[in-house]
Amino acid sequence: MILDLCPSPALYPYYQKVNDTVIVVDVFRASATLCAMLHNGAVAVIPVADIEIARQYKSAGFLVGAERKTRKCDFADFGNSPFDYKREIVEGKEVVFTTTNGTMAIEMGLESKQLFIGSFSNIDALADECLESSERIVVLCAGWNNRINMEDTLFGGAFAERLSERSEVTIGSDAVRIALELWQQAKNDPLEYLIKSDHYQRLIENGVESDVAYCLQQNTVSVVPCYNKEEKKIRAAK
Amino acid sequence: MILDLCPSPALYPYYQKVNDTVIVVDVFRASATLCAMLHNGAVAVIPVADIEIARQYKSAGFLVGAERKTRKCDFADFGNSPFDYKREIVEGKEVVFTTTNGTMAIEMGLESKQLFIGSFSNIDALADECLESSERIVVLCAGWNNRINMEDTLFGGAFAERLSERSEVTIGSDAVRIALELWQQAKNDPLEYLIKSDHYQRLIENGVESDVAYCLQQNTVSVVPCYNKEEKKIRAAK
Repeated sequence: MILDLCPSPALYPYYQKVNDTVIVVDVFRASATLCAMLHNGAVAVIPVADIEIARQYKSAGFLVGAERKTRKCDFADFGNSPFDYKREIVEGKEVVFTTTNGTMAIEMGLESKQLFIGSFSNIDALADECLESSERIVVLCAGWNNRINMEDTLFGGAFAERLSERSEVTIGSDAVRIALELWQQAKNDPLEYLIKSDHYQRLIENGVESDVAYCLQQNTVSVVPCYNKEEKKIRAAK
Repeated sequence: MILDLCPSPALYPYYQKVNDTVIVVDVFRASATLCAMLHNGAVAVIPVADIEIARQYKSAGFLVGAERKTRKCDFADFGNSPFDYKREIVEGKEVVFTTTNGTMAIEMGLESKQLFIGSFSNIDALADECLESSERIVVLCAGWNNRINMEDTLFGGAFAERLSERSEVTIGSDAVRIALELWQQAKNDPLEYLIKSDHYQRLIENGVESDVAYCLQQNTVSVVPCYNKEEKKIRAAK
């Protein structure tokens, strides 16, 4: 099994191969939020990149989560906090979801054989799921406006470690090596390690410390969100 | 002074700002080779991205260095080894130069206010030069076919350290933080640290161990190659 890591959606054309399984990761916060939705009983998530399309869904009566620049959009039911999506609201429902970086990364990965959503909250379930999937797995980091970030890279390192515990893993490129190096430095206290990082600072300024802590917590859910190409929806992998 | 790092030429549009000073780095090996040319008395280097243009220069009587996939092109006088460019051959001459990744990175950075070439061989001279230059400096990593690599990222971390010793430096983004973290791990023995990296392996397979060691040696020259936009040539900065 080969594991590679693409540090920015804009670089995916240079990392892409046929039949890849892609894991889209946006640690702060879309990945954990998507996991929380499905964990709390949402039947599916409809990811949209365009904010205007999200607005149209809202007018049509859908539940809509929409975030830009770390804030909930006015018209939306929810923002990009995993705590927004309570079971009593989302259970049995479909949720439309658009975020600054996460949904763009999903769009980049649509040509893959399979597309999963990865976060610290489902990291072990994801590693288990990947054992059955593919010859080559690429962690596709959402980054920030196509710039690389620490938290998604860290996740890549953590995931490489978890996968290596389960299977023989060939490291696909230097990007994975860099991620593993960072994770070795950070793993004892990822929150402390990220205090100086760009997006941590942005989130703290917006008063969502509790989101940050939640998004770094490991294995709080066992769901693996999986994109279904035909219906263009994300559902829990079977 | 703000320092940022762009880990791949393809990401430069997302890191670019007006009036940046750009430092193009291709640790293995174009940066050190360019420094060696000027150090050994070449009056200027004409960087070209297109191999056919390099061939035309050769037909017109120029000295030409040309490399693709770590190997010297048949028609060329030199490849991409710093040891190719001996004083007795290049002194007083102009040299045309094209490499797999380095010249592409130079082309990406052409809109900057100033463009320097950085390598471990001129790292301190470069840091000194930058003190006089700009409000914002971006280390632009050449990478490998737009994929990120360890050695250019490491250089970014080393350069951030050197600049911080000379001036108050604001870290521009997570990319610099990642590079600094790597450099802290690697600085005691960069060669050992890079043994598993992609391009180290490629170079060793092509029998150029001595180039690798040379390219990681610090402060072997004091020249700072600087791109002159009007004449489209690289000369030693005054």
